[in-house]
Amino acid sequence: MRIGDLSKATGVPVPTIKYYQRESLLPYGERIGYNQTRYVDEHVRRLRLVRALVEVGRLPIATARDVLGAIEEPDVNLFKALGQVHYAITATRESAATPAEDGRVDELIAEQGWQVSHDNPGRAALAGLLRSITELNQTGLLSRLPDYATLAGQLATVDISLLEDHDSQDEVLETTVLATLLGDVLVALLRHMAQESVATRFSQR
Amino acid sequence: MRIGDLSKATGVPVPTIKYYQRESLLPYGERIGYNQTRYVDEHVRRLRLVRALVEVGRLPIATARDVLGAIEEPDVNLFKALGQVHYAITATRESAATPAEDGRVDELIAEQGWQVSHDNPGRAALAGLLRSITELNQTGLLSRLPDYATLAGQLATVDISLLEDHDSQDEVLETTVLATLLGDVLVALLRHMAQESVATRFSQR
Repeated sequence: MRIGDLSKATGVPVPTIKYYQRESLLPYGERIGYNQTRYVDEHVRRLRLVRALVEVGRLPIATARDVLGAIEEPDVNLFKALGQVHYAITATRESAATPAEDGRVDELIAEQGWQVSHDNPGRAALAGLLRSITELNQTGLLSRLPDYATLAGQLATVDISLLEDHDSQDEVLETTVLATLLGDVLVALLRHMAQESVATRFSQR
Repeated sequence: MRIGDLSKATGVPVPTIKYYQRESLLPYGERIGYNQTRYVDEHVRRLRLVRALVEVGRLPIATARDVLGAIEEPDVNLFKALGQVHYAITATRESAATPAEDGRVDELIAEQGWQVSHDNPGRAALAGLLRSITELNQTGLLSRLPDYATLAGQLATVDISLLEDHDSQDEVLETTVLATLLGDVLVALLRHMAQESVATRFSQR
């Protein structure tokens, strides 16, 4: 197919396709003649993945490139890919967390019986978030941490169960990325709708 | 206190404070003499809230202004504030969803017994997300929708329970905003850490 067909098949405008190519998110097509390039089904699949990361997951271009690079490394496996995705999408600002918050994160992980490596970027990010929550006097949010963690653990079990549907390594890796990223968006949207519903009951009391 | 003290109390650099003021996110201090301005505790509290929205919740400036504006309207209540926050933070792109996805959203809401108004922006956003998931052949994610929705409902119940801790309208509104935004970040971080833990068991089988 030509670039116009690729655009039609995916709904991504041609200039955006060219932009993704310049940014190394999508390979160029095979040149088959003067001013003519051929695209194959693999491009359609890859372009949909790029769009999912950039438009749906709202990743910055550089982060999307990191995520895609991670699942293309030669010796990649599920575990490494998941780590790379988490590392790429977790905001690593300088943390203002104090030892109290670092300790609370360790404690929470132990309470839940989770195995979380020491370099998991979520640890520092969570400690920083707990610092912000403390400064904002949202102590209620802190006291419900175990409730949130328990439900997050159940979400993760559903996420990882998705991988059992797949046999090929490529599919497992793609699903790992998508379940993580699209799952974040999915859970947030569902939670917001449920909040409206629960709030209706709350305000009627 | 002076602007330097406000900066020290919050950890926000003075130029950033001035930027937030120019962008109408933070009121100016009271001018008490030539080249001297007084700030009060209310500024500290407001600045922390702004930082939570912009830095932790990663809202664009214009969106943060919408969210703050929503909880300052004269006749606001919990329900309106929640709606405004959801409206402000939900990406409203032109949806590529088909009637099949719109129907699936209706069905899901009915299955869960949720009361979700017809203009809740989550409906269109979720339908669009389901379209993307379908295009990406992530049918496993679609089949687990009821599991995700059930857990999202339990998360929302925890979120709304936070409001019971507060008496004053101002606090309820502030907690509504923060529990929604910081809660999104909190749940995502916890879920990512739990994914590592569950994946460890998955890959050991």
